[in-house]
Amino acid sequence: MNKGIKLWKKATKIIPGGNSILSKRPDRYLPDAWPTYFERAKGINVWDLDGKKYIDMAQMGIGSSILGYSNKSVNSQVNKAVNQGVSTTLNPKEEYTLAKKLLSLNKGFDSVKFARSGGEAMAMAVRIARAYYKDAKIAFSGYHGWFDWYLATNLENKSNLNNHLLPGLSTKGVSSSLKGSIYPFSYDSVSDFRRLTKKHKNIKIVVVESGRSDFPNSKFVKEIMSFVKKNKAILICDEITTGFRYNGKGLYEDVGFKPDLVVYGKGMGNGFAITAVVGKKKIMKLAQETFISSSNWSERVGFVAANKTLDIINKKKTWLHINRIGKLISKGWNDIIKKHKLKITVGNFYPLISMKLNYGNLNNYILTFFIQEMLKKGYLASSSIYVSYAHKESHVKKYLRETDKILSIISNNLNLKFFKKKLKNRVRSDSFKRL
Amino acid sequence: MNKGIKLWKKATKIIPGGNSILSKRPDRYLPDAWPTYFERAKGINVWDLDGKKYIDMAQMGIGSSILGYSNKSVNSQVNKAVNQGVSTTLNPKEEYTLAKKLLSLNKGFDSVKFARSGGEAMAMAVRIARAYYKDAKIAFSGYHGWFDWYLATNLENKSNLNNHLLPGLSTKGVSSSLKGSIYPFSYDSVSDFRRLTKKHKNIKIVVVESGRSDFPNSKFVKEIMSFVKKNKAILICDEITTGFRYNGKGLYEDVGFKPDLVVYGKGMGNGFAITAVVGKKKIMKLAQETFISSSNWSERVGFVAANKTLDIINKKKTWLHINRIGKLISKGWNDIIKKHKLKITVGNFYPLISMKLNYGNLNNYILTFFIQEMLKKGYLASSSIYVSYAHKESHVKKYLRETDKILSIISNNLNLKFFKKKLKNRVRSDSFKRL
Repeated sequence: MNKGIKLWKKATKIIPGGNSILSKRPDRYLPDAWPTYFERAKGINVWDLDGKKYIDMAQMGIGSSILGYSNKSVNSQVNKAVNQGVSTTLNPKEEYTLAKKLLSLNKGFDSVKFARSGGEAMAMAVRIARAYYKDAKIAFSGYHGWFDWYLATNLENKSNLNNHLLPGLSTKGVSSSLKGSIYPFSYDSVSDFRRLTKKHKNIKIVVVESGRSDFPNSKFVKEIMSFVKKNKAILICDEITTGFRYNGKGLYEDVGFKPDLVVYGKGMGNGFAITAVVGKKKIMKLAQETFISSSNWSERVGFVAANKTLDIINKKKTWLHINRIGKLISKGWNDIIKKHKLKITVGNFYPLISMKLNYGNLNNYILTFFIQEMLKKGYLASSSIYVSYAHKESHVKKYLRETDKILSIISNNLNLKFFKKKLKNRVRSDSFKRL
Repeated sequence: MNKGIKLWKKATKIIPGGNSILSKRPDRYLPDAWPTYFERAKGINVWDLDGKKYIDMAQMGIGSSILGYSNKSVNSQVNKAVNQGVSTTLNPKEEYTLAKKLLSLNKGFDSVKFARSGGEAMAMAVRIARAYYKDAKIAFSGYHGWFDWYLATNLENKSNLNNHLLPGLSTKGVSSSLKGSIYPFSYDSVSDFRRLTKKHKNIKIVVVESGRSDFPNSKFVKEIMSFVKKNKAILICDEITTGFRYNGKGLYEDVGFKPDLVVYGKGMGNGFAITAVVGKKKIMKLAQETFISSSNWSERVGFVAANKTLDIINKKKTWLHINRIGKLISKGWNDIIKKHKLKITVGNFYPLISMKLNYGNLNNYILTFFIQEMLKKGYLASSSIYVSYAHKESHVKKYLRETDKILSIISNNLNLKFFKKKLKNRVRSDSFKRL
């Protein structure tokens, strides 16, 4: 057993679920064999507790380390700030600089507020929107964090969230009184959005991800924009995952959304915890009529890291590289899939490029086998890749060669018996319940 | 106009309220003249944007910089972690180390979960408690952050929160349906707690601060403990402010509380953003039956900072020093108050020592004048001091000498005319509405 799994077994005894984020739990990759913990990381390399070095062709800090691990320029600014003090009786001046920067990137917006975590920033955006429209109902699609306002949708129907990234989410601990405050619609479905907005009145807040594994189709976007305009509803674009990957800000403009509030996180601080709500002052000013405040939001590290990260992103136009690399992976995957006649579809959002397996109950066996074999070759791999600025063409070529070999084996052995024989450990699972 | 106020005026135009935390807004100290922003900080010294150096006899990062600003040992660990990568596809091993450490400090507890902000950690604790007792009503006293579960108390009565740290909080944006989910009781009042628990049934969660400016009296604590025991209610002790100041963990044991969940923040990371819920597994395990997860909770900096900070706190028993210094300030204040026959009362919680002025409408004029004059002498001062390990006896002596001089002037001029003449700027305000 590797040191990581040994530590994980101890961790699960004292931390419910073992850690702070679902997406880093070994059961989602390779139960009982995933390295699980890191000692250090640089570029796209990660060293585990046994000193083994891996090439990260997977999550890159669940998308947060957008420039690559341990970026020298960002770290040098952070270290300087650390040594000059991070949390005093006075404010860090970099909070203003970052707000200014975000507004220069997001034309037509004039107000910004910060938080540390993504779910927290979404809760803030929704509080502000609900302060604007008292008790407005929310229509949403996509994943938006762990807070009550969001999970409340499952109070009405336990399967409401099943098609929004994470199946099997429970609403335990969310006040029953929130039932009927928020309704889901299917991503990219004009008819579902129409059905929903006809059925439920007083929908004054619409929450979407501007994209995820695919871009939304233009009819879907137009339908939402027409509803928002007609009903003077507030549109919140959650760009926590997509932000700074496709261009120097969010995806919203490129796909046709005209949001009132845009929420950023992940990529913004290159791994350091910082999130932001960028919005129209008309709505954002309501933040001053409700109560939103937190000590740790005022800590300097996040602001400093984000200032430098956004400078680098926009100076080097890192998204061009990230899109190019993502496209390369996409093409490579598609070629391999075609060659081996596999039933796998590849998403079209290059900066977070993803494969979807279409083998029913075999899916998780196939993916577990893929992860197991890629790990042997020194890769952290999965069915999606958060492309970073540190991923080079040469990495992709080598990665694709290994992928080809393993997918070839898979294509020749598409049966449960094979996988049961070859898998050294339990099969992976996406479900929250299982973890 | 100083550079800080100039920047503040620009900040308020693009950030609602100007910053992320109420307690760092200049209007709470010296409107239009407070330095407002820092360039760097070391020990108890803070340098503003004009290069002026101040001695911090006030908030010390609203209590978060408990060892003093820019502590070398903590910073060196943080710098090392920064350079080795903070957010990867794998987990930071320091999350486990910190959980283990918190459990060794909090005997009788066996489960820990982390977040980044205090309000967030409280929301997590309440979610877990409500997952244990579905739709349980909450009785609370004290300040517990900006989230819906807490502000909801003002839905029933707009003044419910007035006696809990911040007057004038609005509930705008909180779902009306949460009305009747949470009720306040006065700190230290046995009769009020009895009244409340008799009036409202199904109170299964009690949320308190283990202390704030004063220790709770033992009858009050006993009353709460007897209710909790009899009704099998969950007791949540919010130690975000008090934690690690009075001893090496929370205050709860010393005052007689036997909580099921303890929430820590502030002091824990010496200024770096990290918070924790420490609890009984029986309840904490419910975290796995609801959905609680966030990417930025998994960032390494907070864990590393807290590991080192807690090591220093417990190795050097910093609380002994902090209590001794707080007591010294308390004695000094009381001597001066007596000498000048002032109507000011001093709290008995030394690690966060505070003065309460009893001059009605004159209070804010007196305090503004005090802050203004102390600033001239090079002090960041207010009516409370978060004592840190970096405050030395010599600092206190000098500070008390200046305090004596200014309180002497105040005692000889206790009239509005004097203050209106002497105040160079607007008077300070505590109210959220005013800011």
